[in-house]
Amino acid sequence: MQIEGRNPIKEALASDKTTITKLCVQKGAHDLQAVIDLARQKGIRIDFFEKQTLDKMSETKHHQGIIAYAENFKYASLDDILQKKSGPLFILLLDNIEDPHNLGSIIRVGECLGVDGIVIPNKRAAQVNSTVIKVSAGATSYVKIAMVNNINDVIRKLKDNFVTVCCADMGGESIYDAHLDGDIAVVIGNEGDGVKHLTKSLCDKTIAIPQFGKVNSLNASVACGIICSEIVRQRISK
Amino acid sequence: MQIEGRNPIKEALASDKTTITKLCVQKGAHDLQAVIDLARQKGIRIDFFEKQTLDKMSETKHHQGIIAYAENFKYASLDDILQKKSGPLFILLLDNIEDPHNLGSIIRVGECLGVDGIVIPNKRAAQVNSTVIKVSAGATSYVKIAMVNNINDVIRKLKDNFVTVCCADMGGESIYDAHLDGDIAVVIGNEGDGVKHLTKSLCDKTIAIPQFGKVNSLNASVACGIICSEIVRQRISK
Repeated sequence: MQIEGRNPIKEALASDKTTITKLCVQKGAHDLQAVIDLARQKGIRIDFFEKQTLDKMSETKHHQGIIAYAENFKYASLDDILQKKSGPLFILLLDNIEDPHNLGSIIRVGECLGVDGIVIPNKRAAQVNSTVIKVSAGATSYVKIAMVNNINDVIRKLKDNFVTVCCADMGGESIYDAHLDGDIAVVIGNEGDGVKHLTKSLCDKTIAIPQFGKVNSLNASVACGIICSEIVRQRISK
Repeated sequence: MQIEGRNPIKEALASDKTTITKLCVQKGAHDLQAVIDLARQKGIRIDFFEKQTLDKMSETKHHQGIIAYAENFKYASLDDILQKKSGPLFILLLDNIEDPHNLGSIIRVGECLGVDGIVIPNKRAAQVNSTVIKVSAGATSYVKIAMVNNINDVIRKLKDNFVTVCCADMGGESIYDAHLDGDIAVVIGNEGDGVKHLTKSLCDKTIAIPQFGKVNSLNASVACGIICSEIVRQRISK
């Protein structure tokens, strides 16, 4: 797996969730000394290349002079996420987010707002790749991400563990009125189709962001950010 | 100016803020009949091309089989935005957002959450172009966008009009504690540098989104969405 760009690589070097095996650095590139020093300390092989060579190697086309090769992303298990020792659980379930930019952006939002873990399906959905890592601004190194066969089975298991599972969808109860405290999981649906019918029917409730415009479609990561922030607010105000 | 993609063109055709002069449609493209019919009703010239020709014409590289040529975007004036007849004012001031994707995404967020207008500077900042229109999902057709010489002058004028001007920046008062009711304007800073020192010093207060992660940097449009949502919540709960 490739990781590209200064910050994602810095975060990956500092984290134990990614093992970097090789660093490719642009000759004469500025501002990379801190990353290079960190890699040297860890005994990672560093090769220097001309900019054109890195341009060819780059998958995201925004390498910022540095590309790392790493072992494949280490997913957590659902049990890893559930083994939180203190405080209420806060989990995101992504029901087939297809765009790697949206997945990366949601991971970044989740990490910033303190979710305990993010669950993604292993079929018909974006997985953690170099674009996701780059867009997440390195958040993939810090938040637990579990990949599962079936989101519906996860919902059933969470409900057995007394976690309230909320489906984010138009027409639901306003997030400002809904009680979003305690152990909670939020299902975010596919960009085009939303949350699947069966998945929605398994959830404890449906919640929605009140909207007032004519376009009335928030981007998945913005919607996720607004819902996570409201959960944080309700917890803090308790 | 070019507008690309099904939804942005549909929104532009329905709005009086954009005058479309010509429509270029991919031969044999599906799902475009509604847009074509709407354009025909309005007497707009429609030309059909092979996909390869549209690919070459496309600026965003995501034309979805349809590209429109339109007169340049019609900006509103600050007075247009201030001439709201009922309810408290809700304005976004963008202090040099440089990435057209962020600008488009912020316009979409603002429109969905009911802002009265968005003010952007005419220098060192992204302006409304085909990428912004596409990313905004057509919201540029519905929300008033004013382009000004100097954001600081706008802040002074808003304060003279008893609008509370809040600067969104790290280290400010928590958005959950701050009183965000009444006539309000929020300043969103540049992606890298945040809000400029002088601009920040002119604001009535600084507000921040509490964050709990290690990355601790929300994307500009996500941060904007969370702040707008909290303003909406406080208004609704009054």
